[in-house]
Parts: sequence; C-alpha cells; structure tokens
Amino acid sequence: MYANKRVFWRQNKAKLFLLIVGFVSFNLCLHAQSDEQVSEHKGTERVSLTQYVNPFIGTSNFGATHPGAQYPHGMASVVPFNVAFGKEEGNIFEKDESWHSRPYVHENTFLTGFSHVNLSGVGCPELGALLLMPTSGELELDPQKYGSTYTKEVASPGYYSSHLNKYNIRTEVTSTPRSGISRYHFPAGKNHIIFNLGLSLSNETGAMVKRVSDTEIEGFRTIGTFCYRPEDIRPVYFVAQVSQSPSASGVYKKMPEYKNVEAEWVKFNNSYKTYDNYFQAMAGDDVGAYFTFQHEQATSIEVKVGISYVSIENARANLEAEQPKFNFDRTLEQSTAAWNKLLSRVKVKGTVLNKRLFYTALYHMLIHPNLLQDVNGEYPIMGSHRIGNTQGKDRYTTFSLWDTNRNVHPFLSLVYPELQSAMVNSMVDMAKESGWMPKWELLSMETDVMVGDPAAIVIADTYLKGITDFDVMSAYSYLKKGSDTSQNNPLRPESVDYNSLAYVPIDDEGSWDGSVSTSLEYYLADFAISQLANALGKPDDSKRYYQKSLGYKHLLDPETGMLRPKFRSGEWFTPYNPELGRNFEPAPGYVEGNAWNYRFYVPHDVPGLIEALGGSDIFLAELQRCFETNNYDMANEPDITYPFLFNYVEGSAWKSQKKVKQLINKYYADKPSGLPGNDDAGTMSAWLAFSMLGLYPVTPASTEYAIVTPQFEHIEISLSDKYYEGNTLVIESSSQQKDEPFIESVHLNSTKIDSFFVDHTQLVKGGTLRFQLQSTPNTSVTEH
Amino acid sequence: MYANKRVFWRQNKAKLFLLIVGFVSFNLCLHAQSDEQVSEHKGTERVSLTQYVNPFIGTSNFGATHPGAQYPHGMASVVPFNVAFGKEEGNIFEKDESWHSRPYVHENTFLTGFSHVNLSGVGCPELGALLLMPTSGELELDPQKYGSTYTKEVASPGYYSSHLNKYNIRTEVTSTPRSGISRYHFPAGKNHIIFNLGLSLSNETGAMVKRVSDTEIEGFRTIGTFCYRPEDIRPVYFVAQVSQSPSASGVYKKMPEYKNVEAEWVKFNNSYKTYDNYFQAMAGDDVGAYFTFQHEQATSIEVKVGISYVSIENARANLEAEQPKFNFDRTLEQSTAAWNKLLSRVKVKGTVLNKRLFYTALYHMLIHPNLLQDVNGEYPIMGSHRIGNTQGKDRYTTFSLWDTNRNVHPFLSLVYPELQSAMVNSMVDMAKESGWMPKWELLSMETDVMVGDPAAIVIADTYLKGITDFDVMSAYSYLKKGSDTSQNNPLRPESVDYNSLAYVPIDDEGSWDGSVSTSLEYYLADFAISQLANALGKPDDSKRYYQKSLGYKHLLDPETGMLRPKFRSGEWFTPYNPELGRNFEPAPGYVEGNAWNYRFYVPHDVPGLIEALGGSDIFLAELQRCFETNNYDMANEPDITYPFLFNYVEGSAWKSQKKVKQLINKYYADKPSGLPGNDDAGTMSAWLAFSMLGLYPVTPASTEYAIVTPQFEHIEISLSDKYYEGNTLVIESSSQQKDEPFIESVHLNSTKIDSFFVDHTQLVKGGTLRFQLQSTPNTSVTEH
Repeated sequence: MYANKRVFWRQNKAKLFLLIVGFVSFNLCLHAQSDEQVSEHKGTERVSLTQYVNPFIGTSNFGATHPGAQYPHGMASVVPFNVAFGKEEGNIFEKDESWHSRPYVHENTFLTGFSHVNLSGVGCPELGALLLMPTSGELELDPQKYGSTYTKEVASPGYYSSHLNKYNIRTEVTSTPRSGISRYHFPAGKNHIIFNLGLSLSNETGAMVKRVSDTEIEGFRTIGTFCYRPEDIRPVYFVAQVSQSPSASGVYKKMPEYKNVEAEWVKFNNSYKTYDNYFQAMAGDDVGAYFTFQHEQATSIEVKVGISYVSIENARANLEAEQPKFNFDRTLEQSTAAWNKLLSRVKVKGTVLNKRLFYTALYHMLIHPNLLQDVNGEYPIMGSHRIGNTQGKDRYTTFSLWDTNRNVHPFLSLVYPELQSAMVNSMVDMAKESGWMPKWELLSMETDVMVGDPAAIVIADTYLKGITDFDVMSAYSYLKKGSDTSQNNPLRPESVDYNSLAYVPIDDEGSWDGSVSTSLEYYLADFAISQLANALGKPDDSKRYYQKSLGYKHLLDPETGMLRPKFRSGEWFTPYNPELGRNFEPAPGYVEGNAWNYRFYVPHDVPGLIEALGGSDIFLAELQRCFETNNYDMANEPDITYPFLFNYVEGSAWKSQKKVKQLINKYYADKPSGLPGNDDAGTMSAWLAFSMLGLYPVTPASTEYAIVTPQFEHIEISLSDKYYEGNTLVIESSSQQKDEPFIESVHLNSTKIDSFFVDHTQLVKGGTLRFQLQSTPNTSVTEH
Repeated sequence: MYANKRVFWRQNKAKLFLLIVGFVSFNLCLHAQSDEQVSEHKGTERVSLTQYVNPFIGTSNFGATHPGAQYPHGMASVVPFNVAFGKEEGNIFEKDESWHSRPYVHENTFLTGFSHVNLSGVGCPELGALLLMPTSGELELDPQKYGSTYTKEVASPGYYSSHLNKYNIRTEVTSTPRSGISRYHFPAGKNHIIFNLGLSLSNETGAMVKRVSDTEIEGFRTIGTFCYRPEDIRPVYFVAQVSQSPSASGVYKKMPEYKNVEAEWVKFNNSYKTYDNYFQAMAGDDVGAYFTFQHEQATSIEVKVGISYVSIENARANLEAEQPKFNFDRTLEQSTAAWNKLLSRVKVKGTVLNKRLFYTALYHMLIHPNLLQDVNGEYPIMGSHRIGNTQGKDRYTTFSLWDTNRNVHPFLSLVYPELQSAMVNSMVDMAKESGWMPKWELLSMETDVMVGDPAAIVIADTYLKGITDFDVMSAYSYLKKGSDTSQNNPLRPESVDYNSLAYVPIDDEGSWDGSVSTSLEYYLADFAISQLANALGKPDDSKRYYQKSLGYKHLLDPETGMLRPKFRSGEWFTPYNPELGRNFEPAPGYVEGNAWNYRFYVPHDVPGLIEALGGSDIFLAELQRCFETNNYDMANEPDITYPFLFNYVEGSAWKSQKKVKQLINKYYADKPSGLPGNDDAGTMSAWLAFSMLGLYPVTPASTEYAIVTPQFEHIEISLSDKYYEGNTLVIESSSQQKDEPFIESVHLNSTKIDSFFVDHTQLVKGGTLRFQLQSTPNTSVTEH
C-alpha cells in the first residue's frame, strides 16, 4: 500500500496508521498492516507483492496512468477524478483547456468525484465517466461548486482512499472486474451521494438515469469520440446501489440557459434542477441522481456500481454476481488477492526501489486490455451494435496495438501466456466480426488511431512464441487480407500505393500524416506475416511478405542516411530537415516523432539496415549520435528499441547494457513523475519490466530477446504449465553491485550463450539464465 | 373542410380543388368534395357537419387554439408548429420571447415541424413536443435552418395540410386517439423525415431515442413545468414508424459548445452530430432521429407516431391497435367520422356563418379534456409515477377547471352527458388517488394553476343535472375535505383564514394573488357543495355550506359597491382603485382581472347581490356602467355571465338578449381572430355555443339556464337515452330575421315559460322550446 508524498507515509507510518484506524474498518487495517509489514523473505505464500506497487507512478509527467482502484484487466475501475474546474483551488491541468487524456493528475488538487470507467496511460480523452461524489451540508449539484480539495491519499492495487477537506469525508474505493464499490465515511449531519452523468473526460455527451428504488438507480451514459474522432460511440450501462436508505433522493438535470423574458419566470436557468422522488427515466446532456442522508452520528455508507456495455440488465447481473452484498472489505480482499496472484508470477530479489519499479510496471501492464463481456458472456460485437456471447471465453478490449505490440504483448506471452492467448483469440474474433484485424480497438469500436498494421505483429509473435491455441488459419487469412487488399482497406488505408510502389509516397499527406512512418509499420507487419507464413509451412507466402518487408530500402536515403519521405515519382522530399518533429511540430513523412526517431526503425532487419547504412562503424556512430544529440525519445515507441541495438554490433553490447541502465535511472522512478511520458497502455512500463529482467524483444515476430544486465540478483518466473515445457525460469546475476553493471557472460543452464541474444523457445524450457557480471565493459567480439 | 384566407378557398374553389388533386389521393378528394358539396338539406345521415368547422378560428388574437389534426378528446394530435425562429422569414411571435402558450399562431409563417402532443386554448406553454418535419436536399438538423415557410393551408376536424415552400413538399396530417399519421408528398431527389425531440413548447428538456429498425424509432421526451412551475414533470413515450425503408437513417444530438483549444479538434461544436445507423439508445437535451430517402420520382411517405404516458411498449401497442397499417386515408375517414358523429348531436338551421361559429365552438369544446389511458387501460396515477388500469373505463386528463367549470362541463352535461360522466368519474378517481380533487390537472399532475375549488362546482352541477353514475358519496367526502380542511390544504391553500374569517384577507398577498378572487371562488364552491348536500339528503351540511357561500357579503364594500380586499383586522384595503388590473397590471385582491370583472361575480346568489347592492335600479345602472366603461372583459372568465344578469331584473331581459348578440358579433367571427381571447380549453367557445342556443348556465350547481335569443331558427339536440327521458330537444324560433332579435315569449312544449329562465330537468324531458321573437324589446315584467 502506497501513500504519496503529501501523506509522508514512509516518514510517518505510525501516524498514518492511526489516521487510518480512525476511518476504516479493523479488517482493512489488518490488510494495510500486512502489506507493509510482512517481508518478502517470509514464506512466499504469505508475501503480498502489492505492497511494491505504487499506483501514483505515472500520474504526473503526462504518464496518464490513474491511481484508482482497478481489478486486473477490469472493465470497471474507480478513479479519483480531479481534472475539472478547481483553478482557484489549485488545479493546474483542466481537461477542457488542452488535449487532455487523464482522469487524474497528481499535481491537481480539486476532486469532483470518482469515475467508474477509465483508461490508463493513453493519449486521447475518453471515458472518465459515471462520477460518484460524496458531499455534506446543503445539496449542491454543480461539480464546480461541490468539488473538494483532498489530502491523505493512499493507493494500492485495487484500492484508493483520500480525505475530502471540504466535507471531512474519508473516501475509500475498490472494485471487481465489472463493478466498483465506494465506502464513504460521513460525519454526522446532512450528507449526500451524487451520481453525475454529465461530467466526464469523454467528449461525448448524453445520459439517462432512472431510479429503481430509494437505494438503486440505473441508466446509461454515452461515451466515444476517442481522439476527438466522432465516428463511433457506445452507451455504458450502469446500475448503482447505496447501502442505506436515504432520507431523500431523486434525479437532477442541468436546465438550459433561458434568455429573453422567460428568464424571469423559470426557476432553474442554466442551473441544476432536482426532481425529488422522481421514478421515471430522466434524460439529458447533464443529468444525474442524488441520495441524501441525515446522520445523527458519523456513518459509513457503501455504494456499488455495476457496469456493462450491453444493457442495464447485464450491468445489474454483473453487480449481483460480483458483489451480491455490500462488503467493501471482502471486495478489497478479492481484488488484492487477484493482483497478488498475477504479480507473483515473477518473484525478484533486489532493492526495494527496483521492486517498486518492477511490480508497478507489471501492474501497469495488467490494466489494459480489459474484459468486455458480462458475466453472462454477452458483449457488443466489433464494429456493431449487435450482441454476441463469448460462450465461456474471455473477450478483451482496449487494444492500443501500435504501442503494445512492441513489448506488452511479448511480455504477456512470456509471463502470462494464458492472458495473451485470450487476447489474441479476442483479436481474431474481432476480425471475424468486422472483417478486419483491430488497430486501436476500444469497446468493440475501431478508432483507427495511429498507423500501420500492428495486429499482424501481435498475432505472428504470439504464435511463434508457442501460444497457438487460437484459430491461426483464420487469423492468417485476415493478415493476408490486410496486407494484400489495395482498394478500400480500412486497416492499411495507404496500401494502394504501398502495394504498388513498395512504399507510401508523401504526395497525398495532409489528410493523414506519416508516409515514412506508415511504410515502416507496413514493412514490419509484412515481416511478421512472412514469419507466420513460414511457421505455417507456406514458403511462397513467406518469401513474398519477406520481400515486402525489405521495401524499407526504398526509403533509405544514401545522402542523409535517413529513412526519408519520397514522392510517388521516386524523388526525395525536399527540403528535408531530420530534426523537425522533435517537439511535436509537423514533420512531413513522420507521425509522432522525427526522422531520427524512425531512423533505425527496422527492427526486423537490423543487420540489413546496418549494412545498408554502410556497415557497423557508421551505424554505431550514428546510433551514438542519436543519443548524444537528444534525438532519442524515451517516451516514443518507434525508437524504444534503440538502446538495445548496440547488441547488434560486435563488441558493443556493453553500450546497450550501459544505456539501458542509464535510461532506467533517468526516466523511471518511484514517484508520480516516474514514467518517461505517456505509459501508452503499459508500453513504457513493459520496456522497464523487460529491461529489468535483462531481456528485450527487439525483433517482433521472432523468438529472440536481446540481453542486457538484469536489475535483480534473482528473478523467478513461473512458467505456464499449459504453454511451456519448463516450470520456472530463473534469472540469476552473480552480483547486483552498482559497480558491476556489465555482462561478462551468460549461461542458460549449463550452456554458455555465444551472443547477446537468447531464444524464447529455450528460455521457456525452464532452468536458469545465469549472468556473470563485471565492473568493466566486455568488448569481446560476440556473434549475432 | 376549411381553407384559410391565404388559399382563397371560397373565392377560388375550383382552382384549389385541382391543386389538392395534384397532391392528395383520390380518396381524400372525394372526402373534401363531399364535405363541401353535400348540403345539410340532404338526408341527415349523409350530412358532414365537419365542413362547418374552421380550425383556424382562435389561432390569432391569442386564442391559442391550434389548427392541427386531432381526434375528439385525443391524447395525440398533429399540429403545425410555427412558433420557433423564423423572424427573418416573417415570424411575428417567438415562443421564447414572451409568455407564449401556442404551438401555432396564424400570423406566423415559419414552420419547424408537426408536434404530436399539444394543448389547445390554454394560457401556459406546455407540450408542443415530438416534432416531425419533412425536408429535401442535404440533411440539415438545425430547425432554425430547416424550417420553411408554407402556403396552401387547409384544415378540417382531424385534418391539416400545407405546402412547404422551401422543399416543395405537400404535408397532410391526421390522427387517432393515441397516434398521429403524416403523409408527405416528396418531390424526386433526396428527402428526409426528421423527428426532433429537442425543440418544443414545453420548458422541460431531455429525451431518449432509439432506432428499433430502419423504419422504427422509440423513446421518450420529458415534458412539464406548465406555467413555468417546476414541480412536476413526466415523460411522454413514443414509437414512430415510416412507411418506406430509408436509404440512410440514424439518430442525432446537438453537441455542446466547446471553447478553448478543444474547439479546434472537435468536429461538432455547438452543432448537430449525426450517428448514422446507430442502434443504441441516444439521450440528451437536443436529440432526434432522421430517415433519408433517395427518390427517383415524386413519392408519398407516411409516418405513424404512437404515444403513451405509461411506457414505450404501450406507445407501440396504441399505435398497433389504432393504426395497424399505413393507411392515411382510412385514418382520416375515421377521425372525420368521429367528429361528425359528435357534432351531429346538435343540428341547426341558420346562416352558414352561424353554423361555422357554432360547430367550431363545439369542436373546440371537444378537444380537451383528453384520453389518458392506453389501449390496454394503463395510465399514470394522479400525482404519482405508479401505473393504474382503468379496467375498461375512459380516464380523462387536462382539466382547466377554473375555466371549464363555468360552461364547458355544463354544456357537456346537456349535450354529451356520457362524456361528462366519464370526466367526473375521472375527477373522482383522481381524488381517490391523490387525496384531493383536481384544480388544473395535466397528465395526472396537479399544476395548481389558478385559484378556487372548481371541482366542487363541476361535481355538484353534474349530479344535479341528472348525471349520477359516479361514486357521489366519495366525491362528496372529498368536496367536504376540500372545504373543511384548514391546515395543509393544497386544494384551498387559503382555507385557514377563509374558514375562520369567512373571507381570505389581503394581508398575506405577495406569495400568491387574489384574496378577493379566491374568496369568491370558495363561496361559489361552497354553494355547490351545499346544493349537492341537499340533493344527497344532508340538510345540515347543506345549510352549513350555504352559509359559507354567503360570506361574500363580508367583502361587499358599501362605500364603493365593490367586492373589495379586506385585511384580517376587518379594515378595507386602502387606497383602492377598482380600475386597476384591467391591463393585467397587478391589482391587489384580484387575479386575472380587476374589481369590475369580479364586481358581480356571485352567480350563486344574484338576487342576494342585487339586494345587497341596493336593489335592482342600482344593480342595473352599475351593470350597465360596467359595459359602458369598458370594464367588461369578454375574454375573462369571472365576468362572462354578466351579459345574462339583466335577466335577473324584471323587464330588463331584453338587455341580455341585445348584449349577448352584440358580444357575439363583436368578438366571434369566422376567421383566425374570431375568438375574444384565449379559448381557455373551450370556455370562450362554450360561451358562444350556449349563447347561440339561447341558453346560459349562470348559476352553477343549479339546473337553471338563463334564456336569450337563439341564433338559429331551428336547433335539434339529440338527448342521451341513458341519462335523459327525452329523445330530442328542439329549440325553435319564430323567425331569425335580423330585425327580430327580441324575445316576445317562450314556450316549452305547450307551456309558456313565465320567466327568462328555464330548467334543465324540464328541457331534458325533450320536446320543443319555442321562441316567439319580435323586433322590439319586451319590457314586460317577468318573474325570476
């Protein structure tokens, strides 16, 4: 359990413990106590690894993660929402004043509720809806007025708590896969619970709410327009229940602004109107419900909220299945246990700081994708408003594939193959439902955000890693369709040119961005397809897609050594400044980055690239120059493999070891700003987690990991019985001294590894990967 | 069938006929032809009296009636909505620029759709919602932009048609009790049908709409806040179906105004966003649906809309029961037949002008109250959101009782006793459901508009008229409760003072208006209760309430002869100007009128008032002065009996005959401005209808009609078999010459009537009321 700086948790543990005792149940205190006090050196069964997770990491520096309560891959989450209004109360970031994708920002101070559907670590505003807020005194329904500053923030996986200063209310929240529960510790007096369906991070609007009884409401809220794209939207359905009968309750709606003489007569002009005891459905842009309580003494009230993307009935069924009673403590226990079970798949020995970084990274990787199906198996079919049934399988959603194909899915394949299998199955089902593989899928909506065809990489990589329990032949046919369809191809809209020219020309940029970036992603995807074709015994296909994947050479400009935008005519784009785009200004040919960020982005043919650039020395010099000139962006996906590329040059692997360690130290920390930037649905975290294990999957759709120095003296990965031969993979380092950061040699079991690469298929047979470390760089020649 | 001036119907009948042929089906043309060409002199079975109804009467001069299609007492109606926007296109009245209660105003020119729930002739904005609009060209969803001017308006009971200039679309609408149907005659090209749930006359907002299929939508729209009172609201549920599969369809929503930098990214900023092919529920302040058609040639499309105040399911059931197929012509036939059947209850011979005035008055009286229950009997219970079932009875709603108690309900009792019975049954059921008799009931919501206790008058009057098939003992107990409850009496909020002082003192005015007005209404209601008590054999009660009813004498100021505001202390309100309030400026003591309008408002004790004022001569002089000084307001309910009060002074009845005829000529006409003011749910029309029959119910809760000169040479009222002994009441005049406007004598069958009053119980035995008219006033003394 983690407390942020404001609480001085570590400085003042006893004091906080007493504070908590004052507010939460004895049960919870035991929980908090055990998290903090049971050492990892005790029997492994009793170790709670959740103590190492700091949910506040990434909540500053635009990391965009949230510190709220979430079950692993949960559809629901309960997140403190502090990005609306509050400038006077100290808020720095306002959701409507910039491109703002965060329901919570650590620097902010003004809380306007707890949202029940949320995204973590994404770059576009969406969800952040179904806001529950406890207040005291006279009922106020304007969030700008009822918002409160807060102190005493505490968060751990599945738990968040803070104290609302304005009302003297202690809040606690936790969740199940499809529901949230909040416990509000009210002072004596008049108290309220407000369910706000107007305010949200989503730019969609409109909601319906209906009181079912004094203690229950139901309805829906429309969400969508991810990345300000208006194409696709959905309702999120909910059922909310309070644990105590209110003394009054009703629904409310913000009334429009009346001008002219009508303004004299209407009682609610541009203000919130209450409908006390109204039992019909209420709809509008800004509606909600309230429950008012008159407490003679301080009282705790719990509120459960079940959600569904199918129907109100399903939201109720989800809630009843996962939280049949009001039992905050039990729900919290279950969530904590679920997190601990997943985190325990990897056990490490090392510094507390490194453990906190590592387990928080794991935690961040296990938030998205999310479960989409309800407890009865129903879910919205991809790109449709029809309802399907998973028939017992899990259906995942929220695939930020341009990001996560790079390392999140490879990490899941290694450590959580059963999850990766389920996700790939979901992706194949999406293709079957919509005709196309997903790209940035959100709640069965294809948002078409970013470029490329990342599903091909995920599918091929997963299969090659040995996770084959999905309909690979169907998957393969959709991958081929994605690559080969030139006309009307929503997945690869630039495939007309790409398939005829072998690159995407810059001629038509303007309506879209990034001809070079798009080409590079297509090459990579085609490489993945070629590798899958090979595995499936289709050598002709494999050869053809491999040839496509080498098209990058068409864009390699001998003059600048850059992957440079080219016209359809074959002429290079001129004038050309490779530095352009470093600060997110438009850079013709590139999307989200500049030419340097894409310069070495041919991870499927690094040796070929090295050769094409003029050999190892030039490559090495230019790679070095990339870092030295500040053209390496740790927070930008296309270049995040660059630190590992030194491994490809004989005698230089120590530079990767050094660079990776430097980058970890520079960009990752056990504090809110402890991510290099937007976590991108776990991608920044996965970079850290892999790096700390000493492994990194540079080449997608291959079984090869680049090797760097592990950040732990002992790592134990429990391998899946179902997918892998081995029981456990141990990664051991001879030393974890700060003065021995370099690899002298690596042995897998008794076999010395001759390169700075190791094969996945070997690792998952189990055993020990033993690192012999030393204090000086090992410049001896190794082979790749 | 009537055409307004713009069409020059009467001047250019043949031309219009050809125009109609161009637009509507042959079937309808036959209908139009028969209405216009079959003379009333042919066999009565074939006479269509709907031809004499001019639905445009009352659509100007603030009459507030609508010219739309409505089934008698229909829950649904389809009304051209022309009170939004359009200033540049010539609109004069804008619903949001004043206290505006009209969905249609004749002077306006800019139509933004056809509303499916409407009030006619009321003083507060409400309903005017569920707007259907046909358009052509590119889809435009902003009503300010898609509205159109129109020409060629035609309306008859149950039918309205016009031509939308902007789109070259001919529209026709008709309705059933619980549904509407529209037929749009589209030109070739791209055409649309828009269902707008944002725009309305109601000041409530918020709606939900969901596409059920390509051709069907369902949802609800919240309505309420009648008279800008925020207390009570309801959803009106709907199901709408189009007769042809559209080429595209979807829902839409007006997006909020984005400011800051977000405005650069959102595609829909303060504008209408479409959700093509969206099949989930959409909710918001301003949402709707659209159907787009691509027509190769001119095509007619029909749209059915079913409504319910219970549920979407019931709206669908209503629609399926009343319009199982798309058959505009048949629906129109049924509506016309229903109107004709009701209108035929009274047959008259006279000038066409008088027929048009009379049948339009009848028509206006039969619009409200409205059916509330669905075809399955379900309806919202009074003051509740629970659902009841009428078990086969009709449940009526929309009781503007302060207005309609005076003459509408008495007229119904005489001519349509079965309807009056059903309405009184509904009122008693409301009391059983809510604990109190209704005052201004709207859709099972008590809006508490206006003062007094008018239900008492309606109940007593109905019972005394011989309509006794309701739970009179329960009704009586609720009437007593209304009169006797001093504390917490929502029906008579001033009863604390009234019951102790025998009048409502002016001391507390401010939070409410009209201490004198309120007192006078309470006296009248108590008189009604006393009369009912008497009829029920409760002489003690009768005496007690009768005494209460005479309390008006406490307010009769000997100095001014006015019913003057008085303080609790017994002192008169000073300074006092009886003229104040004539122009709707505040007049302490009076509501909706000035002292003059209330001066003789003791219709239950006119002789007593005459005596108290100092005798007949003074009374007569003051009554005369009231008219001469322009202090008689024909459009204000409290004084509308004044023209008949001359009957109470011996030898002066001719003045009533003359005055009534003058008022008819002055205030009523066969043109849009042909009502003296707001029709008040038929009250102004009922004044006309009674007056034209030569009868007027001055004293409520009595069986007495004052007699004036009938405006027809021959009147035949079919008497109800169930309620009345007689078959037919004939009212015959010896002459209908303009130079013989005065009554010489009146005989009921063979008996000469000795006064200028006749008894209801005698009339309903049937026979002939024969008027002998003469050219000079009859100043001979008669007895009352």
